[in-house]
This record gives sequence, structure tokens and C-alpha cells, in this order.
Amino acid sequence: MFKKHLEAVRETAPLIHNITNYVTVNDVANAILAVGASPIMTAEPDEVEEIIAVCSGLNINLGTLTRATIAAMFRAAAKAQALGRPRVLDPVGAGASTLRTETALGLLSQFRFSAVRGNISEIKTLAVGHGATKGVDADVGDAITAGALDAAVDFAKKLSARLGCVVAITGATDLVADAQKCFVIRNGRAEMGRITGTGCQLSGILTAFVCAAKTRGNDVAEAVAAAVCAMGVAGEIAWQRMLSGDGNSTYRNRIIDALFNLTGDALDAGAKCELR
Amino acid sequence: MFKKHLEAVRETAPLIHNITNYVTVNDVANAILAVGASPIMTAEPDEVEEIIAVCSGLNINLGTLTRATIAAMFRAAAKAQALGRPRVLDPVGAGASTLRTETALGLLSQFRFSAVRGNISEIKTLAVGHGATKGVDADVGDAITAGALDAAVDFAKKLSARLGCVVAITGATDLVADAQKCFVIRNGRAEMGRITGTGCQLSGILTAFVCAAKTRGNDVAEAVAAAVCAMGVAGEIAWQRMLSGDGNSTYRNRIIDALFNLTGDALDAGAKCELR
Amino acid sequence: MFKKHLEAVRETAPLIHNITNYVTVNDVANAILAVGASPIMTAEPDEVEEIIAVCSGLNINLGTLTRATIAAMFRAAAKAQALGRPRVLDPVGAGASTLRTETALGLLSQFRFSAVRGNISEIKTLAVGHGATKGVDADVGDAITAGALDAAVDFAKKLSARLGCVVAITGATDLVADAQKCFVIRNGRAEMGRITGTGCQLSGILTAFVCAAKTRGNDVAEAVAAAVCAMGVAGEIAWQRMLSGDGNSTYRNRIIDALFNLTGDALDAGAKCELR
Repeated sequence: MFKKHLEAVRETAPLIHNITNYVTVNDVANAILAVGASPIMTAEPDEVEEIIAVCSGLNINLGTLTRATIAAMFRAAAKAQALGRPRVLDPVGAGASTLRTETALGLLSQFRFSAVRGNISEIKTLAVGHGATKGVDADVGDAITAGALDAAVDFAKKLSARLGCVVAITGATDLVADAQKCFVIRNGRAEMGRITGTGCQLSGILTAFVCAAKTRGNDVAEAVAAAVCAMGVAGEIAWQRMLSGDGNSTYRNRIIDALFNLTGDALDAGAKCELR
Repeated sequence: MFKKHLEAVRETAPLIHNITNYVTVNDVANAILAVGASPIMTAEPDEVEEIIAVCSGLNINLGTLTRATIAAMFRAAAKAQALGRPRVLDPVGAGASTLRTETALGLLSQFRFSAVRGNISEIKTLAVGHGATKGVDADVGDAITAGALDAAVDFAKKLSARLGCVVAITGATDLVADAQKCFVIRNGRAEMGRITGTGCQLSGILTAFVCAAKTRGNDVAEAVAAAVCAMGVAGEIAWQRMLSGDGNSTYRNRIIDALFNLTGDALDAGAKCELR
Repeated sequence: MFKKHLEAVRETAPLIHNITNYVTVNDVANAILAVGASPIMTAEPDEVEEIIAVCSGLNINLGTLTRATIAAMFRAAAKAQALGRPRVLDPVGAGASTLRTETALGLLSQFRFSAVRGNISEIKTLAVGHGATKGVDADVGDAITAGALDAAVDFAKKLSARLGCVVAITGATDLVADAQKCFVIRNGRAEMGRITGTGCQLSGILTAFVCAAKTRGNDVAEAVAAAVCAMGVAGEIAWQRMLSGDGNSTYRNRIIDALFNLTGDALDAGAKCELR
């Protein structure tokens, strides 16, 4: 089911404009290259409109946002929307500061996105319109890992309907929802949380999957689910290659390597995905 | 002796706010994760006060400082001090430019830090109040590697007393001093200097060690010495895993991996530390 | 022929001031360290003049340029020229945005560079004075890979004469020209294009090679060709060390490792270079 999405990325090789944080930017670039797309990074307000114009899609990541890069985000999103380029939002740290929460909400209110991806705390902040403090992501968060999965699926579908975009909530269990359906994904490993930037990398490759799906006329939620599965399967393959003495830095390299070598068949064989 | 400090980091898992340079920021984040703590990076003046409020401690690193990030450093340090959050300063390049020297001195005069870590040239700049030009770090520098260790130990203790914070001077031999005592550490390898950012990584994990020590009521100088030893022991373990053809990029990965796998017992067994 | 240039870098260990993008900056720093030189990164306008004054040379890379870093580029270049420090320009993305094209042309019109390195699209933008849109680098681009190599060599020599600096055009076949001669280099592997930043790394080490050549009174074009060959040979050696399951992230590490271990003899033995 997901094979065609990965192959579409490799065949269309979309050029992705990333406005992203300086912590994980190098890994985001290499992850995008690993899946067969190409990255461009710039957050200079005076050139983002020209850059998005030559790109296939826009990935906005709020990590290490600044007043200057926020201006770039709005200018790039406006131009991307005017040109019909897919837009993806990764609301890193929404809820942790007023600036991040307001930037995320402002972008979502002014522009329509193809997909939003975050952890439960960030997505919940978008849903309720203000930030929860650190660790206070109990209700919905518990629901995803515990028995009450139904409530979380319902939450994701309703938020998708309200925002008019695919909603991806990633964690121990990942949810990818549009208004009608929700993919429940159980790939990946807990150790991925000990590497900085696996979420940022996912948002980068996810943007490439969305661009390829739009080009091919494929379902966007399914393409997002394919990207989420690809990252998780890569994390599992990479873990199998870990040797005694290896740690989170080597794991980081091996995950990107696994994305690089991931075949459509391996993706379909490894995907642990249920449709609700 | 140092085992309890590493275990305290892993048990308390402090969240560290880093205002740090864009050269080594990814490795700093992965090193902090490797020791069992968590990193947040932001240098936007308009959100640093909220971010430090949800964190356990603040790591200020002057590498690639800008006028905007300097403003963030002062705002974050003021808030951290008001909230009683530990503060660590890494005066990267103090002495190499007036801006860096004045920023370091300004931070030290306005705020009280838990620890300051730098190479001898940077620390000497803080001590004398103005920059030495490149390579002119003779007097005290020679003292540490040569026979006149006593003078260097005395210098470190007196500077610690004057600044009211732990002083860590790292190089071939490392000194970690408070006003009463000085740890003389001989871990690590010269090849670590062929990797960018081992010093920045150390300042990052050191902040986590300080936070854990404050939480547990442990001695702060001893916690800083534990972090310095941990970095050095990791450098030694990592070197043992180097294969023919490996170079500084792989060494970088293996050092972070070694931090990830470092046990309290391995730290105590490997520490080459003398108390003066 | 190239051995003496690599050895000159290792013996003189130049300190390189880099104003470069935040995507690949860590790899640039480690690549510079790998060849035996040292990096400093800063793009703060208020300190670049002091920093270049203690450095041997300046590497300006336009990737992720901002209004603030552009100001730093001009101030650093002016000071470098006044002090006689070699200057290298990597016009990343010239042609992709007006801001990048104008910045590149502005730097070239106001200052004299020792070398300019880019892909054919970027260099052609410098030659014609305005940007070609994405993919429109047909004429000269085809010439380098196809039979019409003579036209490309002639173009590179004439542009070198006009700009008064060594011109390096890198791609499947690399050209390094001054007004009189052109090195045609066929090292490297196509897979290097699946890693972000191999071009940025090359510009960084190339600056070190130029600095060493100036110190020793060696030919600058030959030094640039040596750096281009070193990067390509490192890419070939690194590829031989790739194992099943390795991908672009590991390849990145192995290339820097190969630079670290590259000997002058291995460079001369591996160089595929023809003088025209």
C-alpha cells in the first residue's frame, strides 16, 4: 500500500524548501536526500518567495524560530499557497512558549496546510488554542498508549476536519488522520527519542511524500502515513544493525542510512499500520 | 566517587536550555541526550524567559554569538537567576574579539554562574579582563602541562573565589576548582582536539551534571569534575573502538556513543583524577 | 604534484574564518580539521574584522545568507583584502534568488578573490550577471560532460581572466582554471551528491589549501586543483569502505575520515587530473 508513495518520491524527486531549526537541519537535509528528494534551506524573508517558487513544497518547522524567521515563514507560506505548493507545519515546542504557540496558531489561521505533524503535547496545543505546560499532556496522551485509543482517533479526525489538513500525532503509537479515516501506526523504537531530530527528519521527508502524492494524484493522508511508517521501519532496520558499544550518534547515522536503502517492498513488509 | 553524579543525571533527567553556537549544536544536543538529560535550544530574546522557566538549567555558549543572541543570553541569565536555575558559561573565543570578551565579562559581572568552562586562553581572558591574542596563553598555559602545576591550581582556586563559581580549565590536563579544592584530571586524548565541538559538548553535559547535583544537594565542583572525567573517559573508550581508516568524523560519533553507554562503574574505574 | 599542497596545509595549519550556512557548518568544520587546518565560524558583523585579523584566510559561503550575514561578508572581505588574507567565494544558490545573485556579484565587483568555487549553474550566473532558473544550465553544463570539453575549458579560463581569480567548476567533471591553464579532474563519485554539503566542505578545505599555497609561494590554481582532487579521492576511498546497509549518512562520515587519513602519496596516486 505504501510502496507506491516511496516510489513516487524517488521518481518525482521533489525539491523541498525548509524553514527549519539550526539544531537538526543537517540531518533533515540528509534524510530528505536519503528518500530521493532534494532540500533547500533558507529563512531570509527577502528571498523565501523566490525560493519557494522553484520548489515543490514547503516544510515549516518552529524549532529555534526567531522574529526574523517567523517573518520568513509567513511570507513563504503565503507565496506557497498562492502558487499551490503543498505546505507542512511542524509546530516544535508549541505550548512551551507564547511565541511558538501564537506562531503556530497564526500560521494555521492564515494559511491552509496539507499536513501538520507534532507530538501529542504540541498537537493538543493547536487544538485547544493555548499551551499546556511541560508534562501536562495527560488526557489525550494517555489515550493513545492506553486502552482508550478510540478517543484519540476521534480527536485526530475531528481536528483534521477543523484544520482542513492531515493531522499526524507521533509518539509510541502514531496517528495519521484526515476527516474520514485514521491510520494507527506502531512502527519505530523508543530509542529514537534519544536522538535529537527524528521528528524534524520525519517532517522533512513527509513533505516530500506529500509533494509526490499531489503530483501523482494520490491520497495525501495515505502518503503521510507512508512517511511515518518509513521513518519507523528505518528506525527498526537501523536498530538491527547496532553493534555493541554503539549509541545514539551511530543510531542517528544508521536511521538515515536505512531510509537511503529502504525499498518499497521492505516498507510494505515492515509497516505495522491499521486503518480506523 | 563520580558514579553518583552520572546516576543522578540519569535519574533526574534535567531539561537543559542551551543558547549555543550553530556549528556544534547538534552534537551538543545528542551528547546531552546521551548522558540521560534533555536539550532545548533557543536564542530568541522574546521566548527565552518562558523556556528557561520550564527547564532545570541554562548553558550559555558564546560561539557564533550575534547581537540578537547576546540579548537572549542576558535575558535568559536574569530569569534563570531569579528562578534559582543553575547557570553555566562557556566563553568560546573570549579574547579573540572584543565582542566576545565584553559579553563574557558582562555576563560574569551581572550574574552569578554555577560554573565556567573554557580553555586556558579563554579563562585567562576572564581573569585579566581583556583578551590575549591568538597563541598568547603562555604563562598559565605552560604551567598546567609542565612542572609548575601548583601555580595553575592556585590560579584556578583564586579565580573561583573571585567569580564565586566553579572554574573548569580544560586542555591536556584539566583543572576543576572551587575556592577550597582543585581536581586535576588527566583523561581524554589529544585527538579529541581534531573534532569540532568536544568542548561545547562538555559544557552541555556539565550543565546537566550541575543541575542534578543541585537537585540532590551534592557538591557542585565534584559534579563538574565528574562531567569532565566522563567526557575524557568517553574519548578514551571511543578511541579503543576506532578501526583502520576511521578518522575524526567517526571519532565524533563514537565519543557520543561512549557517553550513551557509559556506566557509573566505568566512569569511576576510568577516572584519572587527583585532588589538590 | 599535489602532495606538496596537502603537506603544506598540514605543516602551516592555517586558521580559516568561515562565514557559512547553518546546514553544513559542522561538516565544514570537521573537514577543515581533517586536512590539518583549523576553523573559526562567525557571521556577526561587529566582530568579523577582528576575527579575520587573527586568521589566515576567509571562506564566504552564500548558503542560508541573511541580511545580517551579508553585512558580515562585506565587512570581513574588506578587512581580509586590506590585510592581504586570501579570500574564497562559494556562491551557493547564485541564480536561485535575486538576493544570492546580487550578493555574489557585489562581492566579486568590490573585492578580489583568490578562488571562486561552484557548480556550473552558479558559475554561469556569475559569468552572465543574472540568474538562470533551476535546471537551465544547459549550454556550458552539457559541454563539460559531453564531447565539447574544449568550450568549457575556454569558458573557465576566460572567466578566470575576467574575475582575476581561480575559477573552480565542480560536477561530474571538475574544472579548475586560471587565465593560462585549466585542470580537468575526474575524481569523486556521483553518490557524493546524495550527501548535503560536500561542496561546502570542499570550499572550506580549498581555502586552507589556498592559504598554505600563498604562505609557501606555490601556484594557487594548482593548490585549488589539489583540494578538488583531495575531496574526490576521499570520496572514492570512503566508498570502498561502505558496507551493506550503509547509506548517505555513513558515507558523509567516511569521506571526512578519508580526508583525515589522506596521505600526500595517496592523493598523487589517486588524482585523475589532466592539464589543458
